[in-house]
Amino acid sequence: MTEQRLTRLRDLLTEAGHAAMYVSDLVNVRYLTGFTGSNGALLVPTHGDPVFLTDGRYRDQAAEQLAAAGLELEVVVTRDIIGVAAGRAPADLVAETHLIDVDSWEKLGRPEPSGRLIERLREVKDDAEVDALRRACEISVQALEALLAGPLLGRTEREVARDLEWRMLELGAEDKAFDTILAAGENSAIPHHEPTDRELRRGDLLKIDFGARVDGYHADCTRTVVLGPAADWQREIHAAVKASQAAGLDRLRPGVPVADANTAARGSLEESGWIDAFTTGLGHGVGLQIHEDPFIGSAHPGRLASRTVLTMEPGIYLPGRGGVRIEDTVLVTDPDHGGEPDVLTETTKELLEIH
Amino acid sequence: MTEQRLTRLRDLLTEAGHAAMYVSDLVNVRYLTGFTGSNGALLVPTHGDPVFLTDGRYRDQAAEQLAAAGLELEVVVTRDIIGVAAGRAPADLVAETHLIDVDSWEKLGRPEPSGRLIERLREVKDDAEVDALRRACEISVQALEALLAGPLLGRTEREVARDLEWRMLELGAEDKAFDTILAAGENSAIPHHEPTDRELRRGDLLKIDFGARVDGYHADCTRTVVLGPAADWQREIHAAVKASQAAGLDRLRPGVPVADANTAARGSLEESGWIDAFTTGLGHGVGLQIHEDPFIGSAHPGRLASRTVLTMEPGIYLPGRGGVRIEDTVLVTDPDHGGEPDVLTETTKELLEIH
Repeated sequence: MTEQRLTRLRDLLTEAGHAAMYVSDLVNVRYLTGFTGSNGALLVPTHGDPVFLTDGRYRDQAAEQLAAAGLELEVVVTRDIIGVAAGRAPADLVAETHLIDVDSWEKLGRPEPSGRLIERLREVKDDAEVDALRRACEISVQALEALLAGPLLGRTEREVARDLEWRMLELGAEDKAFDTILAAGENSAIPHHEPTDRELRRGDLLKIDFGARVDGYHADCTRTVVLGPAADWQREIHAAVKASQAAGLDRLRPGVPVADANTAARGSLEESGWIDAFTTGLGHGVGLQIHEDPFIGSAHPGRLASRTVLTMEPGIYLPGRGGVRIEDTVLVTDPDHGGEPDVLTETTKELLEIH
Repeated sequence: MTEQRLTRLRDLLTEAGHAAMYVSDLVNVRYLTGFTGSNGALLVPTHGDPVFLTDGRYRDQAAEQLAAAGLELEVVVTRDIIGVAAGRAPADLVAETHLIDVDSWEKLGRPEPSGRLIERLREVKDDAEVDALRRACEISVQALEALLAGPLLGRTEREVARDLEWRMLELGAEDKAFDTILAAGENSAIPHHEPTDRELRRGDLLKIDFGARVDGYHADCTRTVVLGPAADWQREIHAAVKASQAAGLDRLRPGVPVADANTAARGSLEESGWIDAFTTGLGHGVGLQIHEDPFIGSAHPGRLASRTVLTMEPGIYLPGRGGVRIEDTVLVTDPDHGGEPDVLTETTKELLEIH
């Protein structure tokens, strides 16, 4: 399956009329080869065999991981990856000028920009990627459900965040996908709050934004609950976010303009009168990175492809009072499967009152 | 204290004859300002006031963190950090060309290289940094000692690695400093082994390379123990590594050439006949990054300054059999404190036989 990624990249290079691409971003290198070390690069000629370059620390690991990915590439072990690549690259080389540092680029002979070729490929997930994302999302929601069944009152944000992360590891995550945002009461109004020693109290909104990582793939999920009986204002903003999220989710279908989800979700918040309290982005692709292409926004010119995985995460944030966010990781399905959005982080979105 | 870092940077800029520096690397930005968000930059004129740039998500956080660092800087909130910086920068601007991507650099007007100015400043730690490193190291060794007191036989590498990481969090770490390397038996011969489901068995060498993170500062420590009574070959390589580490440690003194530690530690392994089994780097600076300047090697032209914090980590790796590494995080002390190396990860280096 990984070989097909290299084939697709070469097709894009041929289309663009480039002789070769130098790939140095480690996420893109991992995507193309399976290599997970901290130093490696790939020289991909449009015709001829790709060359993998790494240093002595990764000689064995590179051999194993390339073989596991079904790749038979020449591996060059060197302390001077860029120097060797520069020596072997054809004149018409392109590189990731949006990612590579200037000094390395100069040493490579100032190649032309490749553009976000590999990021574009990464938007559409293959079976292995969907499996890993599905598993990461399953672990995430299982951990959340177990956490919410236990006692929460009187524990600190930090303790409860750790508890959730621990549960994900126990369920088979290789790591958390990112530092858990767990925000109680007035802190829930801060979109990217870092857990503190504040205790969870009766009456608090509790916003939990979290996820597991499996085989390098990230889950991203947010739910907001109330500790004890919900007040009317809490019910109101929760219902408004839920409606907005449903409206946005419904537009995550193959062939639909990416900007449509933005129009739908924001339109819902405009109708309910809460649009000014929504201050973050609405969603983003997710995969080997927690934030990757495509980013949902009014300016996105493209249409959604099948097998794109992205988040949908509207929110309402009321400084000093509290906030609600609801977020799912969603797979855009094939048209011949009805094209219904496949919510990978499937768990209730009702406003739970936790006692 | 953070203000002094900016003052020192301006002194270096003045010395080099530059009008201003654009700082975009997030670790360097954090070092100079305390800002921990994922998007921020700093324009530092040699004369006149620095400007901090970030986007709307970080408006409040930037204000809070800059104030906490005692800085009164102009904060520009914009979606186009580079565009704004380019508009306000003087003609003779320098930037981190070893770190900044090519596209951003072009947009900035192709500034000249700054060199590793801030990395150089970061080599010498101030009191707040030493405190954080000391605490991270204390937590690390406490967690290790507790782990080694418990039962280990029959558990998997992965389980025991998680157990150790969990203990560090419980003791107050904000996170692990890096993914724990926990390698049993033949796996201990792999310098950067990733924990697997292999069970820990009687007779195994068990190599544990781990650390806690506190306030952004990383601890880095390795100990190797035996499960059950040690075999002669295990004792022999452990003793050889211990002697090499002691020889290298002894050279971590103010004013001593950085290369001396390399000569001493490698010389010891040459004497004992194990030098060919030592295949990794000997040590590196540690602070806001787990690997930072200075890197200990024969080619380093400089001398050690007081208040530099770095690791000393020789090892012997015998493929298929096992390996030993002993590593400490060490503070180079002031000459008026005798100049003795201050080992921050203080815990026994005897070959423990764990039952």
